[in-house]
Amino acid sequence: MAIALPNTQHDFERTVSALRAQVDERLGQWLPMAPAQDAIATAMRDGTLAPGKRVRPLLLLLTLKDLQQDAPVSEAGLDLACALEMVHAASLFLDDMPCMDNAELRRGRPTIHRQFGEDVAVLGSVALLSQAFGVAASAEGVPPPTRNQLVRLLAQATGAQGLVRGQYHDLREGQRARPLEAIAHTNRLKTCPLFTAAVEFAALIADASVSCTRHLNGFATELGLAFQLLDDLADGLSAQQIGKDSGKDVGKSTVVALLGPEAARQQVEEHLARADQHLIEAGIGDGHLAQLLGYFATRAR
Amino acid sequence: MAIALPNTQHDFERTVSALRAQVDERLGQWLPMAPAQDAIATAMRDGTLAPGKRVRPLLLLLTLKDLQQDAPVSEAGLDLACALEMVHAASLFLDDMPCMDNAELRRGRPTIHRQFGEDVAVLGSVALLSQAFGVAASAEGVPPPTRNQLVRLLAQATGAQGLVRGQYHDLREGQRARPLEAIAHTNRLKTCPLFTAAVEFAALIADASVSCTRHLNGFATELGLAFQLLDDLADGLSAQQIGKDSGKDVGKSTVVALLGPEAARQQVEEHLARADQHLIEAGIGDGHLAQLLGYFATRAR
Repeated sequence: MAIALPNTQHDFERTVSALRAQVDERLGQWLPMAPAQDAIATAMRDGTLAPGKRVRPLLLLLTLKDLQQDAPVSEAGLDLACALEMVHAASLFLDDMPCMDNAELRRGRPTIHRQFGEDVAVLGSVALLSQAFGVAASAEGVPPPTRNQLVRLLAQATGAQGLVRGQYHDLREGQRARPLEAIAHTNRLKTCPLFTAAVEFAALIADASVSCTRHLNGFATELGLAFQLLDDLADGLSAQQIGKDSGKDVGKSTVVALLGPEAARQQVEEHLARADQHLIEAGIGDGHLAQLLGYFATRAR
Repeated sequence: MAIALPNTQHDFERTVSALRAQVDERLGQWLPMAPAQDAIATAMRDGTLAPGKRVRPLLLLLTLKDLQQDAPVSEAGLDLACALEMVHAASLFLDDMPCMDNAELRRGRPTIHRQFGEDVAVLGSVALLSQAFGVAASAEGVPPPTRNQLVRLLAQATGAQGLVRGQYHDLREGQRARPLEAIAHTNRLKTCPLFTAAVEFAALIADASVSCTRHLNGFATELGLAFQLLDDLADGLSAQQIGKDSGKDVGKSTVVALLGPEAARQQVEEHLARADQHLIEAGIGDGHLAQLLGYFATRAR
């Protein structure tokens, strides 16, 4: 970027870049390069390592940093961050399929089923999910009862009350005209399970208090809602700019469609303000997560 | 049945029926009835509770009985048996989809995607998998480190080196003419992961020795191969008799297609004999699993 940034924001961006690189390196170890004829392993690796923001891993790692006085990232933290990204990638494989959103482009590349076939998309997704659970059950240095809790949390975030429910709502309810409340509900179901899992993973391995965990959960929920709105706002942009199919939401009832972009931006700012309040009440109002909110606020403008 | 059975076989059949009823009752609790508009929960319940042999749960519970001097089934045993059946059902949802085997009938009913749509089949399958992992991480009365091992075992059985690999092999290699060795390899990959997971789950919660566990694993592998061959033999029967699409294997290279039914039956008996030898070496040569082998031998004739 050409403009000079204030020091703290510059530091924050360096921290984020370094963490993202660590996540990608570790993901590459969990999902090693395979011979081309092993389409499942190739799809798992390519689909997960495709350029992305790594928001969920970052959320986990930044929360850990805030809870642990900026200590270096632990093996367990990094592995759990990878588990979240695997689950996220698995959900994208499936969401993009013809029986779901029927998308052609994702992260600037043809979607997994277009590259490898629908069977590989489905099986690769199952394999990624399985691996994520295996990673959570093996988190280095984490006490066994806590690992049990991590697995249970991941199962909730992924299953019938988590991502599955969100995607189903979006598919079946998204086409109808709906009141704002119902749209917000779908958004919450779709984006929040992995956002809240990320902060709760961090809270578990940092042994945070119940009250702190509750506020982190509130923070992640508000951030997830803001994130989904920003995603809907971006849907108006061209495919080149955002690297995935645009216009997929045409005809879908989104907050943006209902209220227009200005009011949606307003809502983003309200969610971010509430997220900030939760951080203050969690006792980490001036850490990395607070800076993350600043980054989102910039995106909203 | 009209014919009088010898007492032990009669007792065995009663034991199996009782265990199957316990599994179905517990599955019904894990997958409670949902309002019809909740298609995901309805598909999960209907697809898992549809009439079936419950071979994998039975394998786990009979192994437990053999290892624990016929003690009543524990909560943990029953829940883990349910977890295996959930994973099995999830794999059937996916295997039947148009991008895989494109089956219309399963367990005497229309396949899940035909009843509820492909999106529900995919999402229901993910939800069942997630729930199975959650159940394994919560197994009542099992020490936390053992629960983590259960989760890791399940992840291996389900993932890229387990069911996923077997199904992919079957899809991509099954159409080609292949030597017997390659067919046996695919059969092993397809059926054995959950069979070996079943006995290893039992060995873990019964705290069996390493040697016993190794022989149980060998037993389950041989049984799985026999089971797959019996399945291929049954594929020649009509849909009414076996309750799922028949003739799906026409053009596929199976042992039955390559050697004819007689030689396939011969192979079944060889696998069962080797399975029996493993039981003897595991020190449980005269328990319920040995009787299970007798039942399979009868099916082969």
